[in-house]
Amino acid sequence: MIDRIIQSIVVKKSFLCVGLDPDLNLIPQHLLDSVDPVFEFNKSIIDVTRDLCVAYKPNLAFYEKLGPSGLISLKKTIDYIGDEHFVIADAKRSDIFNSAKMYADTFYDYFNVDAVTISPYMGFDAVKPFLRKDKYGILLLVTSNPTGSDIQNIITKSGHPLYIDLVKHFLEKCSEKNTMFVLGATRLNEMRQVREIASNHFFLIPGVGAQGGSLKKVCENGFGSDCRLLINSSRAIIYAGSGINFKDDVRIASMNLQKEMMMILKDFHFI
Amino acid sequence: MIDRIIQSIVVKKSFLCVGLDPDLNLIPQHLLDSVDPVFEFNKSIIDVTRDLCVAYKPNLAFYEKLGPSGLISLKKTIDYIGDEHFVIADAKRSDIFNSAKMYADTFYDYFNVDAVTISPYMGFDAVKPFLRKDKYGILLLVTSNPTGSDIQNIITKSGHPLYIDLVKHFLEKCSEKNTMFVLGATRLNEMRQVREIASNHFFLIPGVGAQGGSLKKVCENGFGSDCRLLINSSRAIIYAGSGINFKDDVRIASMNLQKEMMMILKDFHFI
Repeated sequence: MIDRIIQSIVVKKSFLCVGLDPDLNLIPQHLLDSVDPVFEFNKSIIDVTRDLCVAYKPNLAFYEKLGPSGLISLKKTIDYIGDEHFVIADAKRSDIFNSAKMYADTFYDYFNVDAVTISPYMGFDAVKPFLRKDKYGILLLVTSNPTGSDIQNIITKSGHPLYIDLVKHFLEKCSEKNTMFVLGATRLNEMRQVREIASNHFFLIPGVGAQGGSLKKVCENGFGSDCRLLINSSRAIIYAGSGINFKDDVRIASMNLQKEMMMILKDFHFI
Repeated sequence: MIDRIIQSIVVKKSFLCVGLDPDLNLIPQHLLDSVDPVFEFNKSIIDVTRDLCVAYKPNLAFYEKLGPSGLISLKKTIDYIGDEHFVIADAKRSDIFNSAKMYADTFYDYFNVDAVTISPYMGFDAVKPFLRKDKYGILLLVTSNPTGSDIQNIITKSGHPLYIDLVKHFLEKCSEKNTMFVLGATRLNEMRQVREIASNHFFLIPGVGAQGGSLKKVCENGFGSDCRLLINSSRAIIYAGSGINFKDDVRIASMNLQKEMMMILKDFHFI
């Protein structure tokens, strides 16, 4: 799977992950009359970004908010994406082994995604069910929200911040073939430190765009060999337009980001 | 709300929380023919435990596993419980503020629960949306799974384990009127330490019974003034029976636990 992602990055000249976070208050008005506005919106986004991105990341919060019908829209969306893209359920789950296994079954077998984001606070047995052949548990490590560092940067007796202890802990138990790490785009210093330790793992990077992170700086600090970054953009792409022709604006926004990525990939001689 | 829970404990002579974790592989065979086996099972459990417990705790993993229909069963279950009990969505969520708010809206406004379990790793702004008037964010602090202590007991530069730093951090921002803490029944030492710091907060205690925790020891280490414990039991109660008369076995198992709780409440002069 990791080779497939790297190959896809080279072919598409992109390491873009599009965040599919449909909010009924923000999606174009004319879609609200359709039978399933969330699916129609996602379908439009997928149609105009498919060739420009290597991954999609639906955040479960946006689907669960809509009750059972939200899960139906999500399932249809994932089916519509198909097998070419790496699909991440951004669920940030965490539970004891038995319950975590149920979540893993739900996401991998029912929704058929390739990866699930998970919280590390309960330790390895809450993570283990998400590590299957060709499936990825993506561990929250350094998050882009304002208060993330209050916890994640607590200095431990090792003299390092907590996230360093965590990455070392999980590196002993997980490999780059079944885990990735989440590092927020605004946390460049942390990103560089983690990359020094976890040279082969993919990082999933939220927070470019709406949350203020710079793509170029993220790449300078976060690139591993063969890129090994997935940069997520949600709002800046999916809400780039709001009228009847919103797809054109979405296309332009995602093309601009993909072009920027292509230039960086060339600068770093990855393509 | 906190006064209501304490009053309910005194009236019912019980601080039992029944975990509603319906597993189609474990529920009595004859229910599988009904239109909604999960709801029928939960309804039976609620019917025979209603007067013996003060809270119910459905774990979302068990409902999401069933796809959209699982959420329908969950909604029906919560409606059937009604307003008398404290209802906890055991969801262990955690996300950036905007997404966390969506989860909070889902659980509080759509499902109409009183509390949601949340992971602390993203800090306070991931917790804040769950703190509403008469609603409780229940923070994972010390969990009952085997590897929980690998992370939670990391010693920080304060000289204390991480969970102590966390409880102090959140006590500065949250009150006993909007937060509770999860402490596993097998982690008695940690429980006693946290109680010394958080004297007024309710603790939600999983892990009695199937996971090996002792009720009496939990009470000795975890009681605050006016009890302030909710002891969860899932498997030991809901799967106490398996045949056509399973309700009788569930009734006996929950009565036995309630009686044990009553004696302890008397010993401690809470009733």
